[in-house]
Amino acid sequence: MRPFRDLIPFEKARRIMMENIPKIEDFEIVSIENAVGRVLWEDVSSPIDVPPFDRAAEDGYAVKAEDTFGAGQYSPKELKIVGRINTGEFKKIKIKSGEAVEVSTGAVIPEGADAVVRVEDTEKEGTRLKVYRPVHPGFDIAPKGEDIKKGDVILNKGEILTPSKIGALAAIGVPEVKVFRKPRVAVLPTGDELIKPGEELEMGKIYDVNSYTISSLIKENGGIPEVLPYVKDDPKDIEKKLKESLKYDMVVFSGGSSVGERDMLIDVVEKMGKVLFHGVQIKPGKPTWCAIVDGKLVFGMPGFPTSCLNDAYQFLVPALREMAHLKPRREKIVKAKIARRITSTLGRQQFFTVRLDGEIAYPAYKTSGAITSLANSDGYIVIPATVDLVEKGEEVEVHLWG
Amino acid sequence: MRPFRDLIPFEKARRIMMENIPKIEDFEIVSIENAVGRVLWEDVSSPIDVPPFDRAAEDGYAVKAEDTFGAGQYSPKELKIVGRINTGEFKKIKIKSGEAVEVSTGAVIPEGADAVVRVEDTEKEGTRLKVYRPVHPGFDIAPKGEDIKKGDVILNKGEILTPSKIGALAAIGVPEVKVFRKPRVAVLPTGDELIKPGEELEMGKIYDVNSYTISSLIKENGGIPEVLPYVKDDPKDIEKKLKESLKYDMVVFSGGSSVGERDMLIDVVEKMGKVLFHGVQIKPGKPTWCAIVDGKLVFGMPGFPTSCLNDAYQFLVPALREMAHLKPRREKIVKAKIARRITSTLGRQQFFTVRLDGEIAYPAYKTSGAITSLANSDGYIVIPATVDLVEKGEEVEVHLWG
Repeated sequence: MRPFRDLIPFEKARRIMMENIPKIEDFEIVSIENAVGRVLWEDVSSPIDVPPFDRAAEDGYAVKAEDTFGAGQYSPKELKIVGRINTGEFKKIKIKSGEAVEVSTGAVIPEGADAVVRVEDTEKEGTRLKVYRPVHPGFDIAPKGEDIKKGDVILNKGEILTPSKIGALAAIGVPEVKVFRKPRVAVLPTGDELIKPGEELEMGKIYDVNSYTISSLIKENGGIPEVLPYVKDDPKDIEKKLKESLKYDMVVFSGGSSVGERDMLIDVVEKMGKVLFHGVQIKPGKPTWCAIVDGKLVFGMPGFPTSCLNDAYQFLVPALREMAHLKPRREKIVKAKIARRITSTLGRQQFFTVRLDGEIAYPAYKTSGAITSLANSDGYIVIPATVDLVEKGEEVEVHLWG
Repeated sequence: MRPFRDLIPFEKARRIMMENIPKIEDFEIVSIENAVGRVLWEDVSSPIDVPPFDRAAEDGYAVKAEDTFGAGQYSPKELKIVGRINTGEFKKIKIKSGEAVEVSTGAVIPEGADAVVRVEDTEKEGTRLKVYRPVHPGFDIAPKGEDIKKGDVILNKGEILTPSKIGALAAIGVPEVKVFRKPRVAVLPTGDELIKPGEELEMGKIYDVNSYTISSLIKENGGIPEVLPYVKDDPKDIEKKLKESLKYDMVVFSGGSSVGERDMLIDVVEKMGKVLFHGVQIKPGKPTWCAIVDGKLVFGMPGFPTSCLNDAYQFLVPALREMAHLKPRREKIVKAKIARRITSTLGRQQFFTVRLDGEIAYPAYKTSGAITSLANSDGYIVIPATVDLVEKGEEVEVHLWG
């Protein structure tokens, strides 16, 4: 058995990793219908004025404001209605002094008019209009370009497209945008014992778990997972599969479960690239490694499902989001009291899975091989490397998975 | 102009709505690769024991524990290696007293063995094995069914499938699951003035915004949006489109922008179903209505983009998530100081959009028609109906959109 070369603290491992992320630099074009959550690749400026014409801001009558001066509840001004413009239609009408045009909210203001009198401040009788309230020039008109001027930059490179920002793109008539391409992540489960769910379980085999947990997490965090054929416990196969996987943006090995298999993997990786770290002061996850091979970030995660998933949350997710130009994952943390005493190993920061019931956190961890730790846990608590005991009833912070 | 029948408080409107949600009851089957974020329609029990056989928990040698009793650093016990079992393979080996079988982590424990001696506690020489440490029966063996017993319920109806729960499904070999079907939402933009982004802008027309904001929000919150052809400002067309939309699980009208159009819409809805509320004491969003037509929840949202989007966050999102059996949207709220004085209308709860710069919140709101309020805002503050003034520098809570 070989010692880990450098068992380094968790925060240091994360920092080294974050300093070595090859960010996605190229774009793809997506329609705005499918752009929510994507990251803008370039500034977007408006090809039009918004509003594109002088618009009525209320239902009422387009008038010359000065015709309404002096109007009052008992001394209405009388105007002549010379037409009507509905929202969405265009009519070439020009009004003169003493005239009014009926308009709906959003309708084009006719030439010559400089204000809108609201319908509730008027009385209509045939083509005669009584105006009971004076308006000043510009009243209830949204002038062309008031909101956005043609050429204005309305969204910037790197902005994440929320529903409201997608609305802004629609408003300026932009049907598609350039966004950063999503990182494609090769997922490489290792182990001769693995079979796919749905296949018949032969003696000695177990179902592959890590491809499914890792792929789900990649999808949730802005990446595209691609599960490659299972890697055999054989250096030649490892090398072949690693080479094939380098066309992806990131590579994640999970397993092998034995020390011998892990050694094979890291030997191949060392030969082909630069190992950034190998061995981290965490539990679970001690044998985790991270390397750069051919400019691509390559991870080695433990084979045990709970260890692998925790590793994915701690390393893969922040790396992937940084690569994809996304903000760090928004973690929900809740306070709870621990249901029983937990012991921890000094010198290793422990991620301990718990199940929440109201404000009580029950340990969900059985062994690192246990699947029930996955099914039953709502999240984890962090026990620092300097703490060896969490007393029953102590307040803890639970980091929720979901 | 007609008065709103009952202008009701925001919380009351929300409560009435939430009491009238027709929840999705039918399922669809999805593969576990595509199940993240979905909601289980039924309990899932395990078709197998996990582990499915007695497994080695470490690399080492499967032995009879009693053969190691009395072993020590200077008084090793000597055993004979009679074979090797790799992870993933099955060999019919039975060991007798004095024998050992080399095993990798995860390998099948051969018949007759009841413990594993770790490789670091042994020394191998040809087929001779020196054991330097005694082990008790069961040591470093994960017995069949230890984690999950065949028939155990491992996940319950209504649970949301996080990556870890998908891992649990994989572990028991379940390739697909029944989940609640996603609600399909008909989105019906109303207005003769609307054209789609990408189309040429004729005089009098504007680009449709609300379909895009609403659809994006529906996608983000577990629904499937379907934008139907634009509804004309005509009662016959409204009735026709409403009827067609009732094959969806939920219906959302947005617009029309004028009072006349809004009246047409609510008249048709009243004729065909039951209006739950019409008019809410909020700003923006006063003309919002909600109805049940033919068992389906139908919303009427204002036409102005910022008003419509705010309405969608306040009403559509909670309704949709409840319908889909999802938890309420996890909102991120941050504290900030407001950059300038804001006045508000007494009697209406205001949702006021702001842009964040560090710990300062700048008003992003211009007018309810303004698109820049969408593009530039990071979220909103809530000004209660009883408050008419927020002073410059006052601390506010910003509800983030993203």
